[in-house]
Amino acid sequence: MSTKPDIRAYMNALIPDIDRAMDRYLSENAEIPSRLLEAMRYSVYAGGKRLRPVFAIAVAEALGGERSGVMPAACALEFIHTYSLIHDDLPIMDNDDYRRGKLTNHKVYGDAGAVLAGDALQALAFRALADSALPAPRVVRMIAELAQASGPSGMVGGQSADMEHEGQPVSMDVLSYIHRHKTGALITAAVRLGAISQGADEGTLASLTVYAQSLGLAFQIMDDLLDVTGAEQLLGKAAGTDAKAGKATYPALFGAEQSQKMVTDLTDQAKSALQGAGGLLERGTLTALADYLSARDH
Amino acid sequence: MSTKPDIRAYMNALIPDIDRAMDRYLSENAEIPSRLLEAMRYSVYAGGKRLRPVFAIAVAEALGGERSGVMPAACALEFIHTYSLIHDDLPIMDNDDYRRGKLTNHKVYGDAGAVLAGDALQALAFRALADSALPAPRVVRMIAELAQASGPSGMVGGQSADMEHEGQPVSMDVLSYIHRHKTGALITAAVRLGAISQGADEGTLASLTVYAQSLGLAFQIMDDLLDVTGAEQLLGKAAGTDAKAGKATYPALFGAEQSQKMVTDLTDQAKSALQGAGGLLERGTLTALADYLSARDH
Repeated sequence: MSTKPDIRAYMNALIPDIDRAMDRYLSENAEIPSRLLEAMRYSVYAGGKRLRPVFAIAVAEALGGERSGVMPAACALEFIHTYSLIHDDLPIMDNDDYRRGKLTNHKVYGDAGAVLAGDALQALAFRALADSALPAPRVVRMIAELAQASGPSGMVGGQSADMEHEGQPVSMDVLSYIHRHKTGALITAAVRLGAISQGADEGTLASLTVYAQSLGLAFQIMDDLLDVTGAEQLLGKAAGTDAKAGKATYPALFGAEQSQKMVTDLTDQAKSALQGAGGLLERGTLTALADYLSARDH
Repeated sequence: MSTKPDIRAYMNALIPDIDRAMDRYLSENAEIPSRLLEAMRYSVYAGGKRLRPVFAIAVAEALGGERSGVMPAACALEFIHTYSLIHDDLPIMDNDDYRRGKLTNHKVYGDAGAVLAGDALQALAFRALADSALPAPRVVRMIAELAQASGPSGMVGGQSADMEHEGQPVSMDVLSYIHRHKTGALITAAVRLGAISQGADEGTLASLTVYAQSLGLAFQIMDDLLDVTGAEQLLGKAAGTDAKAGKATYPALFGAEQSQKMVTDLTDQAKSALQGAGGLLERGTLTALADYLSARDH
């Protein structure tokens, strides 16, 4: 029997902590042009779920760590995620006017302003991580992992493949590559950074990686499903936009029912992987987070 | 009396080493979509002067270091520089079709492809630096410096201020901010990374920072002067494009003659600063580099 902590309460309590921590890197500074800072803050504080920081912190805490130690990594993950959304929304990319019900960055700060706000947030991510008070060898490893997960072999690779295949029928292999990289890599990095921040052994790290990869894929399939079935106001963007853009999705390839079953199976797989981590991680927030994600409606 | 090493020969010998080192991070890899990798390589190997890597290596060698130790930092600096050029050239930014006589990245790979190639190169810079075999505390400091110099308080801050004031008359303060940040910050980082890679003491670091800041400003004024007076084929872009775009420049504010005198004074200032570094750095490549930069014709 697993205890079921109130995961929503846990997440809701974490968000102000994360927001405050990010603010330290985004406060007024004579060296930062005020309009650039405003553009960066606009998207960072546009009301995300802070899922990646929550993963990093939840894993670090499940391993007995202090929240403060992993906080720079949590901020770095959110900065990377935010920059990728800003660039993704550009007219020369996905061309979205709204995200989470708010105007996208370039609609407010112009295309050039949005390019630079994104570029600045990517640099700030590594600045934040390098400021960590953890032992230096651990910090270097965390930076290497984040750079790998967000770079050409990771997130940007996924975006690139997605862009390249837009409007074309794609194979299962290509779809899997896109999902593992575009969203999966950064979620996996979040979980791994939380573990590395605590000096986790390689066995624990391997189990947590399976946990993260399963959840990352489940998360993306859920996103695709919500785009088909979800109400517009819940997503903050027009529902059905993926189908309109001819994007490759799991529901398009397998149908909604089969996709829903995949989410359930992947969530079970994620929870099983926690047993590999010596039982320490089996119960509690990480299990609850897996269940929460598979049941979300936006 | 200073010895005058043949600085062109030194630089020409370094470039293949730097190109080979960068290739290790840009070789084929099943995890990187081939078109993305091609776009990254296109701009990295578009024939730059490798000025920032040369500075990092020359400083490390002047301090008695091995070339191999500073090479990851040298690659990281060039990746950052290259990504900034790719994004700068975009139609939604400066809108340049040619750079160094070759089509700009987006003219070949499309606007979205160029955004992603730039984003990927920024991540790759930090990946390369994190791979360094130097002691971890030094690597963390180098990453912090590079992130700071290339981020919102550095290079991106300068680009943002430049963009904001385009077509407007600017004050000396604004012009100085733009130059110190847009080009100066990364050149200063190159010199400082070379020094930090060797564990230089704070006194040496301070002297080298003055050297770098003086040269960085001289370099930018030279660029502005060449844009006014230089032949198109030497710059690889249309001469006079800055004036056409209403860009703030030193020649526009002070005239060509006064600007040329500033370059000479700043170069002398840079060379004097080397004396502060205990004489170790006074002669040799760093002095020759300063002279070379102030006399360049492209």
